[in-house]
Amino acid sequence: MIKKAVVLISGGLDSTTCLAIARSQGYELYGMSILYGQRHSSEIDAAKSICKDYQVQEHRVVNLDIGLIGGSALTDPTIKMPESQGQGIPVTYVPARNTVLLSLALGWAEVLKAEAIFIGVNAVDYSGYPDCRPEYIQSFQNMAHLATKIGVEGRGPIIKTPLIALTKAEIIQKGLTLGVDYSKTVTCYQADEDGLGCGLCDACKIRNQGFRDANVSDVTRYRAL
Amino acid sequence: MIKKAVVLISGGLDSTTCLAIARSQGYELYGMSILYGQRHSSEIDAAKSICKDYQVQEHRVVNLDIGLIGGSALTDPTIKMPESQGQGIPVTYVPARNTVLLSLALGWAEVLKAEAIFIGVNAVDYSGYPDCRPEYIQSFQNMAHLATKIGVEGRGPIIKTPLIALTKAEIIQKGLTLGVDYSKTVTCYQADEDGLGCGLCDACKIRNQGFRDANVSDVTRYRAL
Repeated sequence: MIKKAVVLISGGLDSTTCLAIARSQGYELYGMSILYGQRHSSEIDAAKSICKDYQVQEHRVVNLDIGLIGGSALTDPTIKMPESQGQGIPVTYVPARNTVLLSLALGWAEVLKAEAIFIGVNAVDYSGYPDCRPEYIQSFQNMAHLATKIGVEGRGPIIKTPLIALTKAEIIQKGLTLGVDYSKTVTCYQADEDGLGCGLCDACKIRNQGFRDANVSDVTRYRAL
Repeated sequence: MIKKAVVLISGGLDSTTCLAIARSQGYELYGMSILYGQRHSSEIDAAKSICKDYQVQEHRVVNLDIGLIGGSALTDPTIKMPESQGQGIPVTYVPARNTVLLSLALGWAEVLKAEAIFIGVNAVDYSGYPDCRPEYIQSFQNMAHLATKIGVEGRGPIIKTPLIALTKAEIIQKGLTLGVDYSKTVTCYQADEDGLGCGLCDACKIRNQGFRDANVSDVTRYRAL
């Protein structure tokens, strides 16, 4: 019996590791990426290439102009991208982002009758995001079971968050045991069109520190370090 | 102190009544419409015109190609539109539709710091849709409080469903007391480009029956009846 999983894949380090984990668990893979007004498309290019490498059955890129909504440095060009951030919820927070991503994945999961939705959220390194916490995921899960035909019939998809309690170093170590090629993933908030990271923003710093902590060489392609 | 509300407005009878109710409760209005691969745009044209009539502060139309997802006669042109339907969940059900709509509204509500989100769901006339039931809405509400900055701070928006327990006739009566002009609303699944209903599909029939049950004349513009 084939088990299907919808995997949310941004092209970054975390979601690519998540895809590798879903494959290692024997799921037939359906990749979903959301174009929500990001400033660059190299992340989506990376997602497309990674989905090919992992032989996903189908990769859907949904165009969603959530950038219209504003409120985040990731989607609103009038907000300055911070080079480093203080305490609390960061300005790179996208309003209701994971809720929107999971809702779209839920719709596709319902059509596919998929048993699982994988999302690479992580509560350790990015502690300011409310929608990365386990209690949020559990609550989305409860809602999803009530929201859909398959949920009402007791066959709703399980929301899987295999990275939620891992440090960046542990995520990298896990991925490497599964053969992930991290040079193909794009993490930087302001990557160039070839996917090269700036090496200076918080995302690049956290990623680089992860490789250091994992005691492996950082294969990321940077413009400068 | 201004109270803001995001109102999901499709251009149909229910959401227009919902908008009128939100206005009657003193909210500053922010209209949101989602273009999710509907077969016709006359509903959105109606939504735009209605938002002008109600002097909403801002009306955002979000393009979302959820039609890609398939699985519904409303968005997938390969599924035949039924003229009438049997028991159970109808084929016009859009996968995870209200979850996607509410998620997008939640994102905007967070940016606006809105106190309420209005959605015109109804559990009476369309009993086959799992995401129109009160227990689903309550569950989305719980999730929304955990998902967002404003929710975590105890100021998350309340999901308001003033129509949920009303019959179509009661919705129409309520709207008429608030001065709603129903000739401007578009309900038909296959309205023409001028917004004229077919008079034959389930949506048209339920709507027409609502006017009959309310003992008022049906002002809907039909192609044939």
